Amino acid sequence: MSAQIPIAVRDRVSDKAAKTLDIVAKFVDEECIPADTVFEAQVGVGEARWQAHPKILEDLKEKARSLGLWNMFLPKGHYKESPGFTNLEYGLMAEWLGKSRVASEAVNCAAPDTGNMEVLAKYGNDAQKAQWLKPLMDGVIRSAFLMTEPQVASSDARNIELKMVRDGDHYVLNGSKWWSSGAGDPRCKIYIVMGKSDPNNKDPYKQQSVILVPSDTKGITIHRMLSVYGYDDAPHGHGHITFHNVRVPATNLVLGEGRGFEIIQGRLGPGRIHHAMRTIGAAERALEWMLMRINDPTKTPFGKQLREHGVILEWVAKSRLEIDAARLVVLNAAIKMDEQGPKAALKEIAQAKVLVPQTALTVIDRAVQSFGGAGVSQDTPLANMWAQIRTLRLADGPDEVHLQQMGRNENRRGKEVAAKIAAQKAKAEELLKKYNITRSEIGSNIKR
Amino acid sequence: MSAQIPIAVRDRVSDKAAKTLDIVAKFVDEECIPADTVFEAQVGVGEARWQAHPKILEDLKEKARSLGLWNMFLPKGHYKESPGFTNLEYGLMAEWLGKSRVASEAVNCAAPDTGNMEVLAKYGNDAQKAQWLKPLMDGVIRSAFLMTEPQVASSDARNIELKMVRDGDHYVLNGSKWWSSGAGDPRCKIYIVMGKSDPNNKDPYKQQSVILVPSDTKGITIHRMLSVYGYDDAPHGHGHITFHNVRVPATNLVLGEGRGFEIIQGRLGPGRIHHAMRTIGAAERALEWMLMRINDPTKTPFGKQLREHGVILEWVAKSRLEIDAARLVVLNAAIKMDEQGPKAALKEIAQAKVLVPQTALTVIDRAVQSFGGAGVSQDTPLANMWAQIRTLRLADGPDEVHLQQMGRNENRRGKEVAAKIAAQKAKAEELLKKYNITRSEIGSNIKR
Amino acid sequence: MSAQIPIAVRDRVSDKAAKTLDIVAKFVDEECIPADTVFEAQVGVGEARWQAHPKILEDLKEKARSLGLWNMFLPKGHYKESPGFTNLEYGLMAEWLGKSRVASEAVNCAAPDTGNMEVLAKYGNDAQKAQWLKPLMDGVIRSAFLMTEPQVASSDARNIELKMVRDGDHYVLNGSKWWSSGAGDPRCKIYIVMGKSDPNNKDPYKQQSVILVPSDTKGITIHRMLSVYGYDDAPHGHGHITFHNVRVPATNLVLGEGRGFEIIQGRLGPGRIHHAMRTIGAAERALEWMLMRINDPTKTPFGKQLREHGVILEWVAKSRLEIDAARLVVLNAAIKMDEQGPKAALKEIAQAKVLVPQTALTVIDRAVQSFGGAGVSQDTPLANMWAQIRTLRLADGPDEVHLQQMGRNENRRGKEVAAKIAAQKAKAEELLKKYNITRSEIGSNIKR
Amino acid sequence: MSAQIPIAVRDRVSDKAAKTLDIVAKFVDEECIPADTVFEAQVGVGEARWQAHPKILEDLKEKARSLGLWNMFLPKGHYKESPGFTNLEYGLMAEWLGKSRVASEAVNCAAPDTGNMEVLAKYGNDAQKAQWLKPLMDGVIRSAFLMTEPQVASSDARNIELKMVRDGDHYVLNGSKWWSSGAGDPRCKIYIVMGKSDPNNKDPYKQQSVILVPSDTKGITIHRMLSVYGYDDAPHGHGHITFHNVRVPATNLVLGEGRGFEIIQGRLGPGRIHHAMRTIGAAERALEWMLMRINDPTKTPFGKQLREHGVILEWVAKSRLEIDAARLVVLNAAIKMDEQGPKAALKEIAQAKVLVPQTALTVIDRAVQSFGGAGVSQDTPLANMWAQIRTLRLADGPDEVHLQQMGRNENRRGKEVAAKIAAQKAKAEELLKKYNITRSEIGSNIKR
Repeated sequence: MSAQIPIAVRDRVSDKAAKTLDIVAKFVDEECIPADTVFEAQVGVGEARWQAHPKILEDLKEKARSLGLWNMFLPKGHYKESPGFTNLEYGLMAEWLGKSRVASEAVNCAAPDTGNMEVLAKYGNDAQKAQWLKPLMDGVIRSAFLMTEPQVASSDARNIELKMVRDGDHYVLNGSKWWSSGAGDPRCKIYIVMGKSDPNNKDPYKQQSVILVPSDTKGITIHRMLSVYGYDDAPHGHGHITFHNVRVPATNLVLGEGRGFEIIQGRLGPGRIHHAMRTIGAAERALEWMLMRINDPTKTPFGKQLREHGVILEWVAKSRLEIDAARLVVLNAAIKMDEQGPKAALKEIAQAKVLVPQTALTVIDRAVQSFGGAGVSQDTPLANMWAQIRTLRLADGPDEVHLQQMGRNENRRGKEVAAKIAAQKAKAEELLKKYNITRSEIGSNIKR
Repeated sequence: MSAQIPIAVRDRVSDKAAKTLDIVAKFVDEECIPADTVFEAQVGVGEARWQAHPKILEDLKEKARSLGLWNMFLPKGHYKESPGFTNLEYGLMAEWLGKSRVASEAVNCAAPDTGNMEVLAKYGNDAQKAQWLKPLMDGVIRSAFLMTEPQVASSDARNIELKMVRDGDHYVLNGSKWWSSGAGDPRCKIYIVMGKSDPNNKDPYKQQSVILVPSDTKGITIHRMLSVYGYDDAPHGHGHITFHNVRVPATNLVLGEGRGFEIIQGRLGPGRIHHAMRTIGAAERALEWMLMRINDPTKTPFGKQLREHGVILEWVAKSRLEIDAARLVVLNAAIKMDEQGPKAALKEIAQAKVLVPQTALTVIDRAVQSFGGAGVSQDTPLANMWAQIRTLRLADGPDEVHLQQMGRNENRRGKEVAAKIAAQKAKAEELLKKYNITRSEIGSNIKR
Repeated sequence: MSAQIPIAVRDRVSDKAAKTLDIVAKFVDEECIPADTVFEAQVGVGEARWQAHPKILEDLKEKARSLGLWNMFLPKGHYKESPGFTNLEYGLMAEWLGKSRVASEAVNCAAPDTGNMEVLAKYGNDAQKAQWLKPLMDGVIRSAFLMTEPQVASSDARNIELKMVRDGDHYVLNGSKWWSSGAGDPRCKIYIVMGKSDPNNKDPYKQQSVILVPSDTKGITIHRMLSVYGYDDAPHGHGHITFHNVRVPATNLVLGEGRGFEIIQGRLGPGRIHHAMRTIGAAERALEWMLMRINDPTKTPFGKQLREHGVILEWVAKSRLEIDAARLVVLNAAIKMDEQGPKAALKEIAQAKVLVPQTALTVIDRAVQSFGGAGVSQDTPLANMWAQIRTLRLADGPDEVHLQQMGRNENRRGKEVAAKIAAQKAKAEELLKKYNITRSEIGSNIKR
Repeated sequence: MSAQIPIAVRDRVSDKAAKTLDIVAKFVDEECIPADTVFEAQVGVGEARWQAHPKILEDLKEKARSLGLWNMFLPKGHYKESPGFTNLEYGLMAEWLGKSRVASEAVNCAAPDTGNMEVLAKYGNDAQKAQWLKPLMDGVIRSAFLMTEPQVASSDARNIELKMVRDGDHYVLNGSKWWSSGAGDPRCKIYIVMGKSDPNNKDPYKQQSVILVPSDTKGITIHRMLSVYGYDDAPHGHGHITFHNVRVPATNLVLGEGRGFEIIQGRLGPGRIHHAMRTIGAAERALEWMLMRINDPTKTPFGKQLREHGVILEWVAKSRLEIDAARLVVLNAAIKMDEQGPKAALKEIAQAKVLVPQTALTVIDRAVQSFGGAGVSQDTPLANMWAQIRTLRLADGPDEVHLQQMGRNENRRGKEVAAKIAAQKAKAEELLKKYNITRSEIGSNIKR
C-alpha cells in the first residue's frame, strides 16, 4: 500500500494514485484473496470447468466499480479511455493484484485483455473499437491473443506461419496456435490473431499481419487445453486451437497488412511491467505465508520453532532483499516508460522481464520448502503460484533470448570502452615518463 | 545399461546382475515408457481416477515376471525372499525404472511397497508375513506407510501423535495422517501406521509404535487426496486420512510396543538409495528429451538450431557432469551399505538423499526451459517429473534437517582438527628456531 | 556521469551536483585511472612501500581542488563544513571514484578518513575539531579507526576488550588492534580508538569508549601489516598494532565515557553507502575491461572472438542487469537516509551492504575468467579489485551477521501476517457458506 | 589416509599403496605443513626471493626418500622408471600432497616437472632422457613447460605462434611466452617449448613442434614474473619470457617436427588428475581450518560459538558433501585412465578438470568467510590456496572451453535419442490402438 512505496519513487505517485493504491490493497486483502477459494469451488470439476463463470467474480467486479477500481492499467496520456494513472502508479497497484487469482479480473485489468485493449485503443479503427474495445473495457467479454504456434520456434516471431490468404473481401486462415491464454473462458469472444500474410516479402518483419477473429467463427476448433505443471487454469486456460479455412472480413485487419510486428512490439512494454509487478506481489504473499509458517507455535521440530533453525532467517532476509531490489528495477523501468516511452525503456523493461520471475521463483520455492508437504499441495497458494510464474521465464520469449539481446546491446559499447582503456594506458605511459619512473615488475632482474 | 556402469563400481556387478540390468533397460525403453501413455489414458478422468486399475499394468507385470524381473529390490543376504541382488546392483536397475511412471510397479519394486515389504520381512512375525508380505511380494495387493501428520512438524518424528491406546486385546487409534502415498489405489489393502502408544515414556524415542491396519477397517476415512503442484498422481495418490476409534488386534503390532523408531530407521537406508537412483534415471531421461529438442531441425529461432545458441551446450555439459557425479555418490553409498550395513553408511546415504533431488531438479528445469511452453505442459514428461522430484526435497525430512545433522556429525571432528592444527603450528615455531630464522612479516619495521 | 543517472532518482539530483558529477567522471577517467599506474610505481618496493607518499597524489589533489572537487562526502544539512551534496548526490560521485585506486584520496573522500571526519564533525568538541578535523578536511594528514581486535569475535562489538583505564587526567591503553586500515601511511597521524573503559557496566552497550590517540604516542607499536590475498595495499595498509601502557589525556575522549557504541553506530550509515557505490564503480570498470577483451580482434580461440562464444554475452547481460539492480538498491537507501535519517534507513542500508559486494565479486570474477591468465595477474585491475571487494563481505560485520539481523527484523511481521492470513481463511469459509458451495477436494468421495 | 578411501575404490588400492598413502599422510601432516612456514621464511624478501632455494626443502627431500616417497606419480605399467602405483593410487596420495605447499616437491611429484618427466619418459630419446630425465627424476634440477603466449588466445593451442625456424642443424626461436610456471626457480634448468615450426601446414594440428631449450641459452630473457592475485609464488613463479634468436640444436626436438599436438595431448591426462586430487586436499584442509574456527571457544559473537550460528553447520555439511562427490568423480576418472587409457577417459577427466576447482573454491571461500579478516590475510593458508586454485579454472583451457567440448560430445547422442523417443511415441500410439483407448486431453470437448 502507499505507506510502503519505495522512497525513490514515492514523489512521483500522485495523491489520487496513492489513495487508489490503498483501496486496491484493502480490496485485495479483504475481498479478493478470500474470494479465490470460492472462485475455485465455483469453477467446479471435470468438463464443467470450461463452462464456468463463477458468480463471485461478477459480484467482485460490481464491488470494484463501486470503489472506483476499473481499467487502471490503461496508461495516462496515451489513451482517452484512461482513468489517469501512470505505468508507475498502476504498477504499484498491479503488485497487489498479483497476490490474488481473481483480483486482476475483478478490476478489469487481467491479461491478456489488458494488452489486447491497448492494441485496440492504439491501432484499432472506430468500428473495431466500437465492436470489441467497448465491451472489453466494460468487462462483459474477454479476449485472447493468438501468436505462439506449436510446430515452430515462436520465440523468434518471424517463424510464425499460420496462413492468412486474401480471398476477395476476406482473409482465409489455416494453421495451429497454442498457449492461447484465456481461450478456455466461455466469455472469450474475440481472438487477436497473428499470421503470415506475405510469406515472400523480402523484409521478414513485414510478412506478418494481425487480424480480429470472433471466437465462434466457423472452422475454429479448440483442440485441447494445455496444462501448467498439472494445473489447467480453468476456466481461463491455455488453448491449443486449430484453424481450418477460417474466413474473416478483410476489414478485421488491424492497422494494415504486413504490420504485425509493429503491433506486437507496441503491445509488450506495459504488459511486461504488469506481469513483473504482479509477480512481485505473488512473491510478497509467498514471503508472508513463509513468515506465518516459521512462527507457527504448533510446528516445533527438534524443540524449536522453524524461525530458530539454521538457515531460515537468512532465507527470510534474502527474500526481503531480493524482492525489494527487483521491485526497484521494475519501477525504474515504469518511470522510464512513463517519461520517455517504451522504446527508450527497452533495456530497463528487459531487465525487469528477466529478473523478476527468477527472483519470485526463488522466494516461492523457499516458502514451499519451509512448509514441507503442505507447500507443494492445494493447502497453500504456493505451488500454484510457482507454476504460474515458472511460465513467465518462457512467455514472450525465454530468458535466454532476452539475455542474448541484452548482451548484444551492452556489447555495442565494446569499441568505445576499448578506445577509452587504450587512451588511459597511453596516458599512464606518458605520466610515467613525465614523473621519470618505471613500473616495477616483480622478477624483472632475474638473470640465469 | 551394463555398458554404461561407472568403471569404479563395475567390478562389483555380477554377470547375472549385468544381464538383468540390460533386460530392465530394454523393458523400460521399449515397453514401459510407451505404456505410460496408455496407463494415463486408462486411469481416466474425474472420480474414476481413484477406482482405476489400468489393464496395461497387469500385462506389464506378466511380461516382467516372464523376463525374470520381479522384486529385485529386496537385498541379497538379508532376506531369504531376495532374488539375490546387492543394493548396488538393484540401484543400477532402479535408475532405469525411474525413467518410466509404470516401470517400478511393473516389476513389483514400487514405493512404498518396497519399504513396507522390507519392514515385514525384517520385523514381521510369521503370521504377519503370511497375511501381508506374501501378497505384496506377489504383487496382488499394495500398501501404504502412514507416518506424517498434518498438525505437527513431522520432520521430527517424535512429534507424531496419532493416539494408540491399548484396550484389552486391541489398540484403538484416533488421529490424522497425510502424505499417505499409495492410499488412493483401490488395491491398497494394508496401512503400516505409526502412532504414539506411550506418550509419557521418558525416552522420546520409545513413545511410538508401528501397527498393521487393514485399509477397510471401520473408522478410517480417506478425507481427501493431496495434490503435488497440480498433479493428483492417481490412482496412487497421497492420502489425507482420519482415524476415528479404529480398533486393531494387538497382534498386529510390529516388533513390539515402543519400537516404532527402530522400525522407521531400519526402513530408510535402501529406500533412499532406490529413490535416489530412480531420480538419476529421471534426470537422464530429461537430458535425452533436451537433446532431442535442441537438435530438432524444425525449431530454429534466429536461424540456428537451439544447440547452436548461447548457453545451451554448457547446460548439456553441466547436466552430464552433475548427473554423473551424483550417480557416483549414490553408488558409493550403496556399496557401503552392502558391505558395512546401513548404519555405517549413514553419512553416504544422507549425502545421496540431499544431493540427488537438487541435481535432478536443476537438470529437468534446464530441459523445461529448452522446450519453451511444451516443457511445462502435458506434452513432455518434464513438468510431471519435476513436480514428483520436488517432493523428495521434503519427504523423509527436508534437506535442511539432513544438512544440519550432517553438519553436526562432521563438526564432531572439530576438537581433533583443532589439536592437529595447533600441533602443526607448534612444530612450525620449533622448526623456525631450529633453522634460526624468523617469519618475515610485511611492515614489521615501520617506525612512527 | 549525469547522463547515466537512473531515471528514478534523476530528479533529486541538483544541477550543481550533476555538473560536479560530470567533472568527477572526467577527472577519474582522464586523470586518476592513468595516475594509478604511476602511483604504484612511486610506492616502490620492499620496506620503502611504507614510507612512500607518491608525488602524483599531491598533484592530483591540487588539480582536484582547482576543479572544485573536495570533501564532497560530508552530507548537506548535517555539517556546516559540507560542500552541500546529499548522500544520493555524493553516492553517484563515489561510483566514479571507485573505479580508480587514487581517486577518492585525490578528492579527500577516502575511507577511513571520511568516517573519521564525520565522527569528529558530529561528536568532537571544538579543540578536537581544531586539532584533527581541520587538517583532515585540508587533506594534510590521514587517520585510522581502530576497533577490530585479533583475539575476539569483533563482529559483535561488545567483545572489543582493549583496556582503557582512567589514571588521573589520563587514560592508559593496553591491548591489540588489527585491520587498522590506513595505519601504514606515514601521514596517518591520528588513531580513533575504541576500547573498554567500564568492563563491569551492566549494560554491555555502555562499556566502550572512543578516544583520540596520536599515532606517535609512546607505547604504540605497528606490529606488522596484514595482507589481502597477497596484496599489501601499501602505503595505506591494514595494521596490526599493539598498545603497551599508552597514556592519552582524558580530554581526548570523544563524546564521553561509555558512549562508544553511540559513536560507531552513528559512523556507519553514510560509509556503507560510500563503500557500496565505489564498489558499483569497480564492477562497472570490470565490465568495461571484459567488453574490451571479448571484442579483442587478436584473441580468437577456435576462429571466433570471445563475444561470439557460448555464455559470454549472457555474462555481459547478467552483469549489466545485476549492477543496475544493485545501484538502485544503494541509491534508494541513500535517498531514505537523506530524507529520513540513517536510523530510518537501516533496512535499506543493510540491504546495500550485503548485496553490492556479492554482485561486484560475481561481475569481476566473470571478467577475470574472460581474460584468462591476464585476469589474475598484475596486467589488469581485476584481481586487485576482487581482493579489495572480497573484504567488504567481512568488514563492518560479515554478511551472515547482517542477514540474521535483517531476517529477525523482517520476522517481526510474523504475528501480524499470521493474523491476516487467518482472517482471510475465515472470510473464505464465510463466503463459501454465503454462496452455498463446498470446496471440491480431490478424492473426497473415495470409499474403501 | 587409507582408512578414508571411498569404499567404491578401496579394493583397487594395493596393500603397498595403502601403506604408502599412510606414510604420505603422516609425512604431510607432521613434516610438510609445519615446514611450509619455514619455507616461506627462507624464501626471503625482495629480489632474493627469486634466488632462494630453501634449505628445509632439501632436508625434506632427504627425509622423503628415506621413507620411500619419491616419484610416485609416474604411473605403473607405462614407464620402467615407475615406482609402481596406478593413477588411482597416486591420486589418493596427491590429495595429501595438496594440503602443503612444499609436499609435492619434497617427494619429487611437483608440477610442472611431473608432466615434463612424463613427456621425456614417453617421447624422449635416450640422449634426451640421460641429459634431462635423469636429473629431474633425481630431483636435482627443475623444469618448465612453455606453451601459453601473451598475445594470442592460447586456450586454442593452434594459435601458439612462437617462431621455430630450421637453420642448418639448429632451430632459431623468436617470440614470447608467459605463465611459464616454475621458471622463477634458480634450479629450473630446462624449458620444454612449444612453437610453430610449420605455419603453412594445411593441417593446423601439425604446425607445432616441441623442443628442449636449456634455460641459460643465449637470447632468453625472463622479462618479469606474473602475480596471482597479489602472490608471486616465489621462487617457483610464473614467468613472462622472451626469445630473441635463441638457437637450439635440432636434436633437441622431441618426437619430431610437427608433432607438438601429439605431445601436449599425451601430457594432459595424468596431470589433470594430479591437479584435481591436490585441489581436493586443499579443500579438505580448508574445511579443517573452518572446523577449528567455528569451534574456537574464544570467538563467540552474540554469546554463541560460530558453529551454533545460522548457516554455519549447513556450510560444513555442504562442503563435506561437495568434496566427497568431487573426489569420487576424480577417482573414477583415474580408474578409467588406469584401465582403459587416457583417451577412453577423456570425458571423465574433463569432468574432474571442471568440477574440482569450482568445488574447492566454494569450500575455501566459506572457510575464509567463517574466519573474518584472518581468512583473507597471511594468518591462514586460505587466501593463498584460493588464489592458486582460482588459476585452475583457467590453466589448460578455461572451464568454458571444456564445457563447450563436453557439451558437443554429449550432444552427439542427439540423433540417437531423438530416434528412440520417436520410436517410443510410435509404440505408445500403437498401444493406444491395441487397448482401444484415446488419450484424454483436457478441454477437448469445449465447443464455442
